[in-house]
Parts: sequence; structure tokens; C-alpha cells
Amino acid sequence: MSGYVRTLAERARAASLVLAALDGAERAALIGAMAGQLDAQREAILAANAEDVARGEAGGLSAAMLDRLRLDPPRLAAIAAALREVAAQPDPLDGVTRSETRANGLIIERQRVPLGLIAMIYESRPNVTADAAALCLKAGNAVLLRGGSEARASNAAIAAALHAALRERDLPEAAVSLIEDTAREHVLELLQLSDLIDLAIPRGGESLIRFVAEHARVPVIKHYKGVCHLYVDRAADLDLALNLLVDGKASRPGVCNALETLLVHQDIAPAFVPRALAALSGRGVQVRGCERIRALASDSGIDVAAADDSDYAAEYLDLIIAAHVVDDLDAALAHIARYGSDHTEVIASEDPAAADAFVRRTRSSAVMVNASSRFNDGGQLGLGAEIGISTTRLHAYGPMGVESLTIERFVVRGAGQVRHPESMNR
Amino acid sequence: MSGYVRTLAERARAASLVLAALDGAERAALIGAMAGQLDAQREAILAANAEDVARGEAGGLSAAMLDRLRLDPPRLAAIAAALREVAAQPDPLDGVTRSETRANGLIIERQRVPLGLIAMIYESRPNVTADAAALCLKAGNAVLLRGGSEARASNAAIAAALHAALRERDLPEAAVSLIEDTAREHVLELLQLSDLIDLAIPRGGESLIRFVAEHARVPVIKHYKGVCHLYVDRAADLDLALNLLVDGKASRPGVCNALETLLVHQDIAPAFVPRALAALSGRGVQVRGCERIRALASDSGIDVAAADDSDYAAEYLDLIIAAHVVDDLDAALAHIARYGSDHTEVIASEDPAAADAFVRRTRSSAVMVNASSRFNDGGQLGLGAEIGISTTRLHAYGPMGVESLTIERFVVRGAGQVRHPESMNR
Repeated sequence: MSGYVRTLAERARAASLVLAALDGAERAALIGAMAGQLDAQREAILAANAEDVARGEAGGLSAAMLDRLRLDPPRLAAIAAALREVAAQPDPLDGVTRSETRANGLIIERQRVPLGLIAMIYESRPNVTADAAALCLKAGNAVLLRGGSEARASNAAIAAALHAALRERDLPEAAVSLIEDTAREHVLELLQLSDLIDLAIPRGGESLIRFVAEHARVPVIKHYKGVCHLYVDRAADLDLALNLLVDGKASRPGVCNALETLLVHQDIAPAFVPRALAALSGRGVQVRGCERIRALASDSGIDVAAADDSDYAAEYLDLIIAAHVVDDLDAALAHIARYGSDHTEVIASEDPAAADAFVRRTRSSAVMVNASSRFNDGGQLGLGAEIGISTTRLHAYGPMGVESLTIERFVVRGAGQVRHPESMNR
Repeated sequence: MSGYVRTLAERARAASLVLAALDGAERAALIGAMAGQLDAQREAILAANAEDVARGEAGGLSAAMLDRLRLDPPRLAAIAAALREVAAQPDPLDGVTRSETRANGLIIERQRVPLGLIAMIYESRPNVTADAAALCLKAGNAVLLRGGSEARASNAAIAAALHAALRERDLPEAAVSLIEDTAREHVLELLQLSDLIDLAIPRGGESLIRFVAEHARVPVIKHYKGVCHLYVDRAADLDLALNLLVDGKASRPGVCNALETLLVHQDIAPAFVPRALAALSGRGVQVRGCERIRALASDSGIDVAAADDSDYAAEYLDLIIAAHVVDDLDAALAHIARYGSDHTEVIASEDPAAADAFVRRTRSSAVMVNASSRFNDGGQLGLGAEIGISTTRLHAYGPMGVESLTIERFVVRGAGQVRHPESMNR
């Protein structure tokens, strides 16, 4: 270990104490100033980004990767606008969340405090540099950012703008610390710093998440895959179910809250499956089905490939869906328990008892009754901006907004109460 | 790895799904039945405990360890009574914690679900076997218990009683799984099972906690040490401060919420320190002080050893306290930031501005204004029974009651809403 990341983290940790002492208005003004600096330093950021894009093109990055990497004036303006939205959100550290007076007169309050220092480990998209910094600062945390090597010039230019805003308000630049050397050994070093880092959030592909989970001695909240299911119950409204299927699979197949598997109750399968296959086929979606799905397909003259176990476990992130006819709700729940990833599950049903059983017996981060899986998103669920969608069932589960970057602690207000008053005879 | 613990954990994981599907009344009745079985199997449990105690005596366990290990009829009755109290607590999984209707008509609810499978790793005291099982089950979780080797017969006998209660209610025994073979390699195996275990809680001495933190790939909430401070402000009521000092240090020095360091504002030190030293000395407490403390002590004819850095960082868990005169509140806060363990801090002050600054600028799990550090305890803070006091600033910080053994997730109720309605033209 070189100590390079430890030094950065020690400075960021010290800065976190300064951040935590600011009030909500000061933190909001800082984030607003950061948006202003992103606007002011537009030329420098776009030039740095052009450098990354040119290196990416020369290095053979895919068109999709290049698109995620590329900034232009509207995209940069959107990043600044997102920061202004974060600045305008309510202060997550404001006030007392719960209060109780005990029989002995003690007032027990709970209030939120920052986590401290958050390490964000992410890939390609340079907007994460600004978004993650703003969300962490909004909640009074310092942040240690490690972006991908393909975006290193863009990330450095964005960080320089954020630093200018910190300097102009006499705050330590280390509150937003960028690990500019993207060698993987530095990630390894970061993951060992359990005395300095309160939380690491890996956000990216499967190999990044696995690397972090394997090596971390700091607390980690994973943003992992979504194998999301739509269960069309015997009592489903078929038009409604069809809308949920098309929106869930075809509106944006590359995201974690897209559908990956369709489960259909056997009683309704003859009526629903042919319509579902036609709608999916019309959107260019390939279907991999069980024997009963394939039989219904061939009756309709549609060709469906045979699904196997690996299809039911797959996060395709593509215009492909697995489809399976189940005997009943129990069988649907058993399928989800076996193959699901605890991300998002949907039931289409007009039967409240079936819907309640489905909600009660799934434990995913979000369960939707007659609503699209695509609503599992911080903005859609009313949290404002999100730092990602947690698939770790600890601290935060589902979309993580600014409140998830704080922790509740206890403040006790007394008038001299002691635990053993009988021994106070002085 | 032998796979011994994996097999146990797989069964416990399967049992967790059965537990999660029970309603609150069923979970409460189960815990009540467990209390009944502890009463019914009293003879067997006490005989097993006598075996552990005899082995401990032969093996040279300290008197304190033997005392923690020993059960007798009143202690066993107290364990059963504690279980009945847990059974009677409100259901942590009941109802909706927050609800909001969005502009598109979606109803966004948040509700608590169990974490899943919790591994509890602890030492000597056999009551933890029953307490931890009851708290985990109350919140709908299964539990994997790994107690200390010195208590293995007691733990097995208590687990047998808990299993009898599960059997009599047709529930899987694996909901409470005891790792009977206490070889440390099995703890190592347990800590790798990130596909099965949702949370590991180590509770015990420094070496156990370090071992778990070093090796865990599962999420861990540590119950670590308390280097707790009392700051006596310039504006303190001295009688009140003296009560907090004596209660905090001397009422039960071996617990994590006992005081370890006294900080005194220089303006009040001449009036307070001599009284403090006399009171501490009267309780048999040794003081290790800075130069200014020692000067005031020698004026009073009391002998105080010189404190060094290691004293300020120490968790004595004994009748010893470090004492330090500080220039002002800022210096007190700097001392706490440098040496504290984020557990519990106390200010004695009649000045609301000083108290507010102290609260705002410390980030410990509990901050007490004019109240004893000994109140940082689940029962005292109104949580009911606690599984321990978390020093991890994630998920739960401070005392962990049953609510901390759950996680909030999202339930979305709609009428067919989709994210991209414009593309629904079928």
C-alpha cells in the first residue's frame, strides 16, 4: 500500500468535521455555488471531456460507453440544474425526528447526523462526480470519489469546479476528494481504511461490485442487479397487465428496474400469453419461455425459445425476457424466492387478497401492485435525487436519497438525572 | 471450509422465509412459548450449566467470568421474564411507517420487513442465547447463534428449550440455529456466507470484534468500546456535575456506557476539581490527570498519577478515570474528536448555547445534556430490550432494539400507472 489514498482520506475525514458543523442554509448555498462554478468552468470541463472521448475512441470504447462518457453544453447544464435541485431539497439534518419524555423526566430525542466520510466508487459517467458530491455534502458528509479511468480528465475538471466553490466559501477542498490515479491498487487501499471511511458505495457493473464486496473492510452498500418480475395473477386486468409488461420491459431495457421475467397464472395464460407475445414481438423483444408458454406461442404461430435456469436468473438489460406459466400465486412466489435479486417485483391483480399476499410474502426493496417496475427510482418515489438503488438489506433498501446518507442518534436532555440515585448520598 | 456452517445457514435461511410470513401475534405467541419451555426445562438447563461451570473452574476461568457464566433458578426465571417482555412489545413489522400520494396517483408506502438471517457471535453469558433469539424472531428474522466455548452446554440446553417451542407450533427448528462446534474456523466460514447472512453482530471483547471486522464479507454492525467523556462546562451546576461523575464512573465501571475521561473547563477547575477528586477517591476511583489536574490535586493533598495519551484513549472498564483541564469548549470538543470512540458524551452546563454547541459538534451515538452517560441503554432510552449498542455509524447507531432488526422497503399501489404512458398506444 502506497499510503496515497490514506493521506487523501485523512484530509477528507478532517474536512468532514467542518462540513458537519455547517448549518443547512450554508450547505445549500455551497451546493448552489458548485452549480455556478460548473457553469463558469464550462469550457474547461468540455475540453477535458473531449480529451477523454478522443482517448476512448482511440482505445476502442463501444459506442454505448462513449455516449455515457460524452458531455455537451446541454448535458453539463443538466448536471448544474440537478445540483440546484439538491440544494433546494429540505435539510435532512434539520430538527428532531422523534421525541419522548420518560417517567424520570429525561427527554429522549432522536436526530440525524452525517455518516462522516463516504467513498463512492463508480464507472464511466462523469455526472456521478457532481451528483454524488452534492448529495453527500447536502447531508453534511465529506466524499472520496473514485471514478473510472476512461473519464479521468472529465472528473478532474468537474472536481476543480467543485473545489473552486469550496474555496470561495473558505471551506476545505478535501471535502470533495478525487482519487485521480485510477490504478486498482488504490481502490484496494481505500477498502481497507475502516478507521477513516464510514461507508463505501460501489455503483457499476458486476465485476466492480464483486471486487468491492470481496475486499472491503469498510461498510458497503451495494447497488447490484435487478432481476425484476411481473406476476400476472388469475384476477388481473389484462389491458393493465399488458401496459405494465411493455413499459417494464421495453421502455428502457438497460436499467436495473426493467423487467426480466414474466410469470403468468395458468388460468389466465390462454387469454394473456398470446397478447403478451404479440405486444413484446411488436417492440422487438425476444421471449424465452417454459413449455406451457411455448405451447401457447405455437398455437399463435409465434416462435419462442426454450428458457432454462440461467434465463430465469439473468439480468438481460436488453430486449429479452424470460416467461413462465405458474400454477398459482404460491408457485409465483417460490419462483421469485429462487431466482429473484430482491430488487423490484410487480403483481397485476384486481384481487386485494392476492395483492396483499404478494406484498407480504416478497421482501424486495420495492413491491408494486398494479404499477410499473420502472417506478423503483428515487425521483419517482418522492425522495428527490438518488445516489443509487441499494440492494443491500441494511441501512437503506431501494432508492437512496439524502436521508440515507445520515444516521439517527440519540440526544438526551436532563436536569441531573443519574441511573443510581440511591448511591448519591454525599 | 468444512461446509458445516453453510449447511446450518442454508436451513436457517429457509426458515427465515417461514418466520417472515408469520403475523405479529404468531411471533409474539412463539416467544411466549419459548419462555414457557425455559421454565419447563429448568432442571436440564441448570444441569448443563453446572457442567460448564465445573469445566470452567477446572480450566481456571476467572471469578468474574464464572459469575457471568453461572445460572441459578432466579437468573433463569429472569431470562424467561425478559422473553415475555419482548413478546409483549409492539410488533415492529406492523403497519405503514410513511405514506405519500404522488401527482400521478401512485400511493407510495414504506413498511418494515425483516432483515432475513442474523448471525450473532458472542461470548460467555448464556442469557444472550435466549435474548438474541427472541429479539431476532420478534422482528421476523431467523438467527444463527455462535456462543463461547465456555458456555457450550448451557447454550445447547437453552437452544433445546427454544426448539421445543418451535416444534410445538409446527415451525422449523432451524429458525434458531446454534453452531454447537465452537472451533474458530467455523466463525471464519460463517463470515464468508454473504449469500445467506444479512447481518452479523459481534458482541464481546476487543479481540472477538477485531477478528470479525478483519474477516467478514457479510455486513457487520459492531458493538465496540465506549471511551465516554463528561465535560464540565464553565457554566455547570457543580453538584449536578458531581452526581453525573460519580454515577457515570462508579455505579458500574465494567460497562461500555461508564465514563472513562473527565474534562473540566479551566475557569471552573479550581472550584470543581478538588470536590471531584474527593468524591472519586471516596468511591475507590484512581485518577490519572494532566498537569493542571495534578497541581489542583496537590493543593488538596491528593495524589494523582500523570496521564498520557494512552490514558485518554483507554477504555478502563475499571475504577480508574483520566482527567484533563481544557481551555474552553472548543478544546473539549477537540479532545473528544481525537480520543473518543463515538459512544457516549456528556455535558454538564446551565448555558443552553454551550449545550447546543456540544450537541451539534459531537457525533457520538448518544449525547447527554445534564444526564448520566449510563442512560445510553435500550431500556433507559425507551426501546425495550436491546441486542446491544452499535458503534457502527450505519443502519443503527447506539442501542439496537427490535426495530433495528428490520429494514424499511417500498410498497407502491397503483391503478396501472406506467413510466412512459405516451408509448402505450396499442
